[in-house]
Amino acid sequence: MSAARLLVSCPDRPGIVAAISSFLFESGANIIDSAQHSTDPEGGRFFLRMEFQLDEFDAQRTQLEAAFEQRVARRFAMEWRFASGQKTCAILVSRQAHCLLDLIWRWRSNELGADIAGVISNHRDLAADVTALGVPFTHVPVETARKDDAEAKLLSLLAGRVDFLVLARYMQILSPHFLEQIGVPVINIHHSFLPAFVGANPYRRAYERGVKLIGATAHYVTEELDEGPIIEQDVERVSHRLGVAELERVGRDIERTVLSRAVRWHSEDRVIVDGRKTFVFD
Amino acid sequence: MSAARLLVSCPDRPGIVAAISSFLFESGANIIDSAQHSTDPEGGRFFLRMEFQLDEFDAQRTQLEAAFEQRVARRFAMEWRFASGQKTCAILVSRQAHCLLDLIWRWRSNELGADIAGVISNHRDLAADVTALGVPFTHVPVETARKDDAEAKLLSLLAGRVDFLVLARYMQILSPHFLEQIGVPVINIHHSFLPAFVGANPYRRAYERGVKLIGATAHYVTEELDEGPIIEQDVERVSHRLGVAELERVGRDIERTVLSRAVRWHSEDRVIVDGRKTFVFD
Amino acid sequence: MSAARLLVSCPDRPGIVAAISSFLFESGANIIDSAQHSTDPEGGRFFLRMEFQLDEFDAQRTQLEAAFEQRVARRFAMEWRFASGQKTCAILVSRQAHCLLDLIWRWRSNELGADIAGVISNHRDLAADVTALGVPFTHVPVETARKDDAEAKLLSLLAGRVDFLVLARYMQILSPHFLEQIGVPVINIHHSFLPAFVGANPYRRAYERGVKLIGATAHYVTEELDEGPIIEQDVERVSHRLGVAELERVGRDIERTVLSRAVRWHSEDRVIVDGRKTFVFD
Amino acid sequence: MSAARLLVSCPDRPGIVAAISSFLFESGANIIDSAQHSTDPEGGRFFLRMEFQLDEFDAQRTQLEAAFEQRVARRFAMEWRFASGQKTCAILVSRQAHCLLDLIWRWRSNELGADIAGVISNHRDLAADVTALGVPFTHVPVETARKDDAEAKLLSLLAGRVDFLVLARYMQILSPHFLEQIGVPVINIHHSFLPAFVGANPYRRAYERGVKLIGATAHYVTEELDEGPIIEQDVERVSHRLGVAELERVGRDIERTVLSRAVRWHSEDRVIVDGRKTFVFD
Repeated sequence: MSAARLLVSCPDRPGIVAAISSFLFESGANIIDSAQHSTDPEGGRFFLRMEFQLDEFDAQRTQLEAAFEQRVARRFAMEWRFASGQKTCAILVSRQAHCLLDLIWRWRSNELGADIAGVISNHRDLAADVTALGVPFTHVPVETARKDDAEAKLLSLLAGRVDFLVLARYMQILSPHFLEQIGVPVINIHHSFLPAFVGANPYRRAYERGVKLIGATAHYVTEELDEGPIIEQDVERVSHRLGVAELERVGRDIERTVLSRAVRWHSEDRVIVDGRKTFVFD
Repeated sequence: MSAARLLVSCPDRPGIVAAISSFLFESGANIIDSAQHSTDPEGGRFFLRMEFQLDEFDAQRTQLEAAFEQRVARRFAMEWRFASGQKTCAILVSRQAHCLLDLIWRWRSNELGADIAGVISNHRDLAADVTALGVPFTHVPVETARKDDAEAKLLSLLAGRVDFLVLARYMQILSPHFLEQIGVPVINIHHSFLPAFVGANPYRRAYERGVKLIGATAHYVTEELDEGPIIEQDVERVSHRLGVAELERVGRDIERTVLSRAVRWHSEDRVIVDGRKTFVFD
Repeated sequence: MSAARLLVSCPDRPGIVAAISSFLFESGANIIDSAQHSTDPEGGRFFLRMEFQLDEFDAQRTQLEAAFEQRVARRFAMEWRFASGQKTCAILVSRQAHCLLDLIWRWRSNELGADIAGVISNHRDLAADVTALGVPFTHVPVETARKDDAEAKLLSLLAGRVDFLVLARYMQILSPHFLEQIGVPVINIHHSFLPAFVGANPYRRAYERGVKLIGATAHYVTEELDEGPIIEQDVERVSHRLGVAELERVGRDIERTVLSRAVRWHSEDRVIVDGRKTFVFD
Repeated sequence: MSAARLLVSCPDRPGIVAAISSFLFESGANIIDSAQHSTDPEGGRFFLRMEFQLDEFDAQRTQLEAAFEQRVARRFAMEWRFASGQKTCAILVSRQAHCLLDLIWRWRSNELGADIAGVISNHRDLAADVTALGVPFTHVPVETARKDDAEAKLLSLLAGRVDFLVLARYMQILSPHFLEQIGVPVINIHHSFLPAFVGANPYRRAYERGVKLIGATAHYVTEELDEGPIIEQDVERVSHRLGVAELERVGRDIERTVLSRAVRWHSEDRVIVDGRKTFVFD
């Protein structure tokens, strides 16, 4: 028996759950987890994630998808997809190791939810560590004047080979052209503070402002820098006793935790994006 | 359109969601929220909470229940119940006001989820405050040698008049006989620490032990004192700088938060009890 | 024996603690709590809070202050002040009761740290509740075209009578002129989100953006709206299952908790302001 | 300039801070951080941690200690010690890697606060990982019938070579004899739940009981198993949606965080033990 997932979003109206669950039941599937959400039963949008077991899902997938489209999806104007098996990602990183190592460790402990195809960095610093942990490492340097070349190289390495990308403190901005070409979701992590500090030296500015909470946000990358749909956020309390370096240490801990959670949820198809917003069926 | 809830638990097997959602759809109901959980798709137990809108639910409730029993529940050996409208509770309290006042305030702000029929106390201390807030107050003193009389008085005041009881720091132990006679759920709040301190002066002992977290637990009352199914728990960090009185202050804040959440979730039929465990569809 | 506090800030250099503690010891004081912080032992700034007991502090205060200035403060170029007794505040509020009632309750439970002289509102909605709780209520309406009149009225009611003001969801902006004239600290509470939402309907925008954390910030009011030194912040996790009204409910809970903590810390002279930053010796 | 720490505990009475800070000032030291706590100014106990910079501290340490004993400590019946430089620890581990790898990683990032002399395990499972990270690994098997031999071997490897031991999920109980012979602090980590589950399969029992919080406690090891002074505790919220394996995953994350914090605080001499309690000057 394989486990598979069905993800659906459509305009809300009566009968959706009955239609989907009857279809799956009649197809021989056993629903093992289900979650749904409606933004508004009157004129809102409906989101559903179902996890089910079905004998030889992969073998009969094409047939099942055709039947679902015809008998259910069309009637409710659904956006939908089935998913099965484990996703594969590549990790892009610059010099800071904390997020990367956390992801690799969890992968080795079978708790990441995804497979890691390899690590790509614009620096060589982390090559030895990554290789020692059994993950392929590729160095793709980025020269300021020749960013396009670097992105072309990334595309040639990645396109068609991974289900999503993780930016684990990758300090380069990916161009809209790259995002369009790569065609898979890209997950990023960045610090977050209240009040918000955009630009250079955020931890120093947080220190100078005396913030009482340090945070991090994991989000999907869109053309609007750091403004894509939020997958996960967390914070930790800090006191005035912590200097800039200690705030950065706290920040690293939150970043790795938040990014790992986001990657796991994405890998398990628990995140549905709707415009600038996500629904996370954790 | 009235909103109603359906709560179901049964042995897990394929077809449950399809059967329930088809029944509701065919009955003209619009599902607006749904959550389910299976302890194990193979031989485990299945739990479901559905919230739906249905024209004139109350008028056709008897008929609907009979049909559900016949067409769905019997087939899957379900324990089930429909619920609609707002529940009514009574609050039992001794001398400490913090949980009680929080409940009353939230009731006045329409965020408690339940109606408060009245407050009963074994002391007169809080009579003026409660009355000023527009809630009936009844004094039912408890003499150590005559606890049965007090419980008989409580029963005569409460039986058949409330949907559940809240012990908001009520410092009397209710007898198994009372619990059986009252026949409705009773929600209690108590402090909780790691390591666990049973008995007198828990905050002093927590202080002497140097605990770093202060907590509270809301649970359903069973014959086993403080051992009933847990509805909600929370903690707050404390430092050695806090004395016993300040730990108690922190404890009061957590108690009122945790109890209010538990009451709201219970009121909205979000809690399903299974043996010594709860499933909270928050 | 009265308890008193000494607050000091000055350029850091060796000998400060020795000088202060020797002075207090020779004056017959018993230090019962002490905390200090240096932004940098080399060329940084030093902050200290000492709590001490001293026989007849109030009677000999003038003499003690003169001696401290002469023998200690001058040598180290200190900004300093002694404080004793309980501070008195006034609360300004508009229509929302949650922060106000939390403050009044804690005041009645002797856990606010300050005395409440009265409540002033630009609406009459909360008059009955406040009066029933034994606190004087004054209605000072604010007409858009005649804000100066309202502020003049506030000044005539408050000037010289309170040690600080608390804006417990007071939906009027106080003018720089008012802040200068009132001459005492003003503590405000506002929601806070990541990313930051300035302007109208912040909870709706947070909902539309799918934020995972709801927060609140208590700060001193300066001429820069919502940009004054932060005293306290906190957040709570929220899920996509919460609608706008429920996010607001969560927000109210955080606001009242954060504001009450900020008021208590300010009342106990635990907050030292340095430019746009605070040091909180909690 | 070297940084050093002074830790003091003694019966509380006036003049302690003045005596200590004057001594340090006159010795040419510059206090860069200081924290103190009194359990009760009248008849309680006083605790102090001072961090200071002093030219050639190590060279003049013996002389300084003698002077401090004579001029300050004796007068106030102090327990005291100076500390300087970095501590060295050894880590004992069984099969689970999560706490161990977190400690090693922080050590490599210079954020552990201590040096790691080596790792000892009663199993060979983690040998390759530890060695690859540049840390010596020693296998000391423990046969049930010959525990004394294993402890003797541990003593021969460790005695006199480390400042403290860390049990990073070491699933063997150390005998009172070993603890006495090793003569250095031993830090342990264990899960913690409310209600408390002693014995086998704690996560399964927590799951069956429906706990809402999963926690971990780091403590000094004493002869009373898991009852030594608590250094740090933390918890994370969990829902009924998590199975036993997922509760264990959450538990691992808290364990590694809590243990790393405890090790750092101990390494920086921030923890003062008083009977069964700790004061943590974080």
